[in-house]
Amino acid sequence: MEAMAAMPAVREARAWLERFDGETLAWQCAIAAIPAPTGNERQRADVVAGKLADVGIGAIRRDAAGNLIGRWGGDGASAGVVIAAHLDTVFPEETDLTVRQHGARHVGPGISDNARGLAGMLAIAGACRHAGLRPPAPITFVATTGEEGAGDLAGARHLFASPTFRPVAFIALDGAGIERVVHRALGSRRLRAVYRGPGGHSWAAFGVANPIHAVALAAAAVGELPLPASPRTTASVVRVGGGSGLNTIPQEAWLELDLRSESEAALDALYGAATEALARALDGANRRRAAGTVPLTLQIVPLGYRPSGITDAGHELVQSAVAATRTVGHTPDLAAASTDANVAISRGVPGIALGAGGRGGNTHLVTEWYENVDGPVGLFRALLVVCAAAGLGAA
Amino acid sequence: MEAMAAMPAVREARAWLERFDGETLAWQCAIAAIPAPTGNERQRADVVAGKLADVGIGAIRRDAAGNLIGRWGGDGASAGVVIAAHLDTVFPEETDLTVRQHGARHVGPGISDNARGLAGMLAIAGACRHAGLRPPAPITFVATTGEEGAGDLAGARHLFASPTFRPVAFIALDGAGIERVVHRALGSRRLRAVYRGPGGHSWAAFGVANPIHAVALAAAAVGELPLPASPRTTASVVRVGGGSGLNTIPQEAWLELDLRSESEAALDALYGAATEALARALDGANRRRAAGTVPLTLQIVPLGYRPSGITDAGHELVQSAVAATRTVGHTPDLAAASTDANVAISRGVPGIALGAGGRGGNTHLVTEWYENVDGPVGLFRALLVVCAAAGLGAA
Repeated sequence: MEAMAAMPAVREARAWLERFDGETLAWQCAIAAIPAPTGNERQRADVVAGKLADVGIGAIRRDAAGNLIGRWGGDGASAGVVIAAHLDTVFPEETDLTVRQHGARHVGPGISDNARGLAGMLAIAGACRHAGLRPPAPITFVATTGEEGAGDLAGARHLFASPTFRPVAFIALDGAGIERVVHRALGSRRLRAVYRGPGGHSWAAFGVANPIHAVALAAAAVGELPLPASPRTTASVVRVGGGSGLNTIPQEAWLELDLRSESEAALDALYGAATEALARALDGANRRRAAGTVPLTLQIVPLGYRPSGITDAGHELVQSAVAATRTVGHTPDLAAASTDANVAISRGVPGIALGAGGRGGNTHLVTEWYENVDGPVGLFRALLVVCAAAGLGAA
Repeated sequence: MEAMAAMPAVREARAWLERFDGETLAWQCAIAAIPAPTGNERQRADVVAGKLADVGIGAIRRDAAGNLIGRWGGDGASAGVVIAAHLDTVFPEETDLTVRQHGARHVGPGISDNARGLAGMLAIAGACRHAGLRPPAPITFVATTGEEGAGDLAGARHLFASPTFRPVAFIALDGAGIERVVHRALGSRRLRAVYRGPGGHSWAAFGVANPIHAVALAAAAVGELPLPASPRTTASVVRVGGGSGLNTIPQEAWLELDLRSESEAALDALYGAATEALARALDGANRRRAAGTVPLTLQIVPLGYRPSGITDAGHELVQSAVAATRTVGHTPDLAAASTDANVAISRGVPGIALGAGGRGGNTHLVTEWYENVDGPVGLFRALLVVCAAAGLGAA
């Protein structure tokens, strides 16, 4: 890694990132100001496409999922190394996206997650182009859609749905940071359980099965499920609702579950145990009902599915990210998160996620902030990882 | 009762009710069209006050709770026999209160409950006045506020809060009907239990106590509480809520309980058992939390308190209502309900509730309806009960 960092073209790329730093930050602020709620990323994508062309990456295409795809170097149809940054934010269309500067901080919704990742990807593309960096494998730049929340990694899923899309490595640039190397894909299963029954007056109809009783039995059971500490696995009832008035047994009540694990097997087992608990709760509430009354029903509505997985800590992609972090003078931190890399890892493609330099905080809040400390250094770290994966050191 | 019904003044009162039937129904429709959500009954009260004056009941006063009070006959300050009808409805201010006629039915929110009771009370006042019926004890006509829902019988409570208000009998006219004699006061206790904690990210902060877990343990326990079949007693979790997003352990979750019984002792015991279950749920959820994390708290917010009680089936007030029902050719039906009479009964004053004639349905829904079948007959039944309680037969 040290040797590659000393190559003239790589040094030139680093110098370009430093020179371009002010522009990168300006682009980051401009991108953050464009609404891109999950499912409606088009306006932001148009701007990113324009800037990708500005830095010299031509022949940009947009796929059916709204992903933007640009290619640099190599020949043939192989995707080579993919560097991806998601376009979408958790903020609804009507959110005030004004970016304000307070001293060294830029404050605004999505300023780090993922305006920093997008601007960083554009800068890395520019650095490759301007330094004439041409590793043996091509580099594919992708701005993805549907990464956040209910998007459920839709853009990345669409990429990998094509049987010809088999990159040698997948590197997500997500938010700020210079030390974390996310190599464990945190998977999740999310669902809503809706219990429905006849309902009625709380005095006159008392004895009919109460869907809130079923929700309670279900949520209590989920709260008592045994969970492995390693691989870390969690089960939370995150929302609950039901009822219309103070003197009414409702016709409907529901809960929403968020199940997570670093292990796909643990997650599958947990999903099975949780849905069994939901069914047992249905039976439990129905057993208490008065004779001759209509039983409750249970409907399970899937809300999200993110695959888990791991790119082994010993894998050369992770090792090169560790080495690149040290090369730029920082301490690597192997971590777990849920990013576009989850999809790659679940498809057997080595994947990691890296921060795009700088520091950030209050992610997913309107008070989200970014400080451009070591911004270009963080981007250079990512560029080293991309070039190594594309075979630059080995050439 | 038969003898009293045959008295010339009483026969004249009955004839007047029959002659006035069209006017009573027109007043009922006019009253239903005036908004009177619980807590904001003033506009409807003004109209009722005007009509009470129209039928010849002067010196109407309005007390601090907004109750309208008019007096007929007798002397001194005694309230004598109270006949009460509540002004308020369950319908919010913005509800469309248009009354529509479909064949024999008048359809509109509150057309029976309690526009029928109010119009009926006005008609009975008019019949007493026009027939010159002057029983030994005075008759006090009261249009009450705050009977429905969260009003918690506020108007009737205010009446009885005065130590000088000791009527010999209290008769609520509530809705339509000619057979039911409500002599058992259905009491209730309503509360909201709010569990609060630190909350946090469902992955990063997993291990903090989840207030939804406490709500679930509480609601499940309430669903399993043993309840006596006689005196009939019920416990329902009627509403539940909490949670902000799919990846967040919430900071707050809550449930609302509706506890009811015909017996004050059973209701007190149930209230004790339910609040113990709420506290046990707090402990249960806190026991599962990670070491060093902040425990949940529980706040119990009272939402309603209606006293239970009974006017014994053998009491002369109940017996005269039974006799009056038979005198007008119908079959009495001794029943339990929650009405303004609850307050009287809980203060040791004999109290019952009667329908004001006709038939009704879909109470508390915007599709509420009324059919004027035996409307004046039902009002004559109530007049017989009032006059008997005021000592007319004994004179």
